[in-house]
Amino acid sequence: MAGPGALGLTDDAAIFAPPVGRELVVAADAMVENVHFLPDDPPDTVGRKLLRCNLSDLAAMGARPEGWLLTIARPPSIEDQWFEGFCYGLKEDQILFELGLLGGDTTSTSGPLVLSLTILGSVLPGHAIKRQGIHAGDGLWVTGTIGDGALGLRALQGQVDDPTGYLTHRYRLPQPRVGAPLYGLASGAMDVSDGLLQDTAHLGRENALGVTLHVDAIPFSPAARECGPEWLETCLTGGDDYELLFAVPPDKEDTLLRSPFLATVTGNVPVTRIGSFDQDSNGVRVIDSNNKVLSFKKSGWSHF
Amino acid sequence: MAGPGALGLTDDAAIFAPPVGRELVVAADAMVENVHFLPDDPPDTVGRKLLRCNLSDLAAMGARPEGWLLTIARPPSIEDQWFEGFCYGLKEDQILFELGLLGGDTTSTSGPLVLSLTILGSVLPGHAIKRQGIHAGDGLWVTGTIGDGALGLRALQGQVDDPTGYLTHRYRLPQPRVGAPLYGLASGAMDVSDGLLQDTAHLGRENALGVTLHVDAIPFSPAARECGPEWLETCLTGGDDYELLFAVPPDKEDTLLRSPFLATVTGNVPVTRIGSFDQDSNGVRVIDSNNKVLSFKKSGWSHF
Repeated sequence: MAGPGALGLTDDAAIFAPPVGRELVVAADAMVENVHFLPDDPPDTVGRKLLRCNLSDLAAMGARPEGWLLTIARPPSIEDQWFEGFCYGLKEDQILFELGLLGGDTTSTSGPLVLSLTILGSVLPGHAIKRQGIHAGDGLWVTGTIGDGALGLRALQGQVDDPTGYLTHRYRLPQPRVGAPLYGLASGAMDVSDGLLQDTAHLGRENALGVTLHVDAIPFSPAARECGPEWLETCLTGGDDYELLFAVPPDKEDTLLRSPFLATVTGNVPVTRIGSFDQDSNGVRVIDSNNKVLSFKKSGWSHF
Repeated sequence: MAGPGALGLTDDAAIFAPPVGRELVVAADAMVENVHFLPDDPPDTVGRKLLRCNLSDLAAMGARPEGWLLTIARPPSIEDQWFEGFCYGLKEDQILFELGLLGGDTTSTSGPLVLSLTILGSVLPGHAIKRQGIHAGDGLWVTGTIGDGALGLRALQGQVDDPTGYLTHRYRLPQPRVGAPLYGLASGAMDVSDGLLQDTAHLGRENALGVTLHVDAIPFSPAARECGPEWLETCLTGGDDYELLFAVPPDKEDTLLRSPFLATVTGNVPVTRIGSFDQDSNGVRVIDSNNKVLSFKKSGWSHF
């Protein structure tokens, strides 16, 4: 798994020549067995999921993947065969997303498997998209569809039907929108990881703006629609979407809609305007097509 | 704890402008409660120890600290007060070693506390010291004293006396030799983390050379000498030293000994020639002043 920069991972540290004329973007995330993944998830999806969550953070900043480091606290219950599958998945994604392993550490633990991943990406100076920078009147947009991951988890728990396996797949293998052309279009962005409502609230709060969400505009997959309206709240609060949530000023909407929204690996991604920012309110207001305000018990997700 | 580059840690990732004209050096290490630290270690030393182990990796490469990322898998048993002490220690060291927090993540776990730290440092291009590059005839040198950390752990376990607390302090708070002037002097280097014998064997193997260690030359602290000769093996195989182990060609020895060996934070560090590399053998041979070969049961340490 070691990239050339990792010196075969035999040195104390790896040397990484930052791409000339670019800023680095760095992020770290941890995943714990039974909190973020299930012991019977296929091993090749477990590491991939963590890597892809981190890639989604880079995507939200408009950054290109460069390299990654991984530490593993491994319980004795994890067998070598499981571990091989785990590494196989990571190798595949390392090639797919064009990034090199820069370091890592494996240690033992008496508790559940804990994975921690640091990702390094790069952007042209000043081109990183931040959460702040959004103005009242900007539209709120999202890539792909919302709720599939949360429903996929419920399918694995036997709570919803998933005859095609689509929802389960979306839960286990997020599709980070790396390379999406946010720069020049988005005034602010983040990725949806803790649930659409909670993450929308983050974007609003960090820009001191209120947000109105049009529930009828929110994009759902056919598989999610099949689950029925009683799962709406789960879709909006469930998390594990790893889609991009971004603000676009009105005068940029034409440009956004005129060209395909091309991500490097996942290709042309649909984008949907689901709401707008205003300065007269705070928090998130969800309305239906009759302007009726909907209320939900939960605003976000703290994993299962 | 967030440095300015971390955007107050509210964004998905932090932007980091790499220092102009320098290469980056990156490393990651994990620590697990009951494996790498004890539940009753003072909380302010626990995070510091992890940070300092990573700083020691940078020191071994001749790199300057730049920034760090930390993920924490936190069991419910860790109380807020403990956590405050933990963060306090890290803040202190962040200032002392002049590096900025670039990101992190906290998650829950049902198992022991797991900490994972990624460190970013920088070197002038080509100036990083690697493990490879050592030639037969080069001397083997070490900074500071060996065995204090391992004896400090035994003191905490009630196996040895530590009337002054010196050994315990050395176990809990390594002194990474950041800024030590290895460039231009050392032909290869690493830090001693898994025990002098095992790490010396690594250096030999990675350069396809044998190593002879002169046991009477190995520097021990007065507190370690107090423990008596029956603890020699523990000192040589116990780990947790975080001193620099480096090779110096014979024609550089004068230069090495003529100037103080100044580390940024720990100041002037004693350096001692403890052995030499040769091409006629492999492995590590430990001899006394009568050229008698000593043998040990253990070659290194896999933590407790």
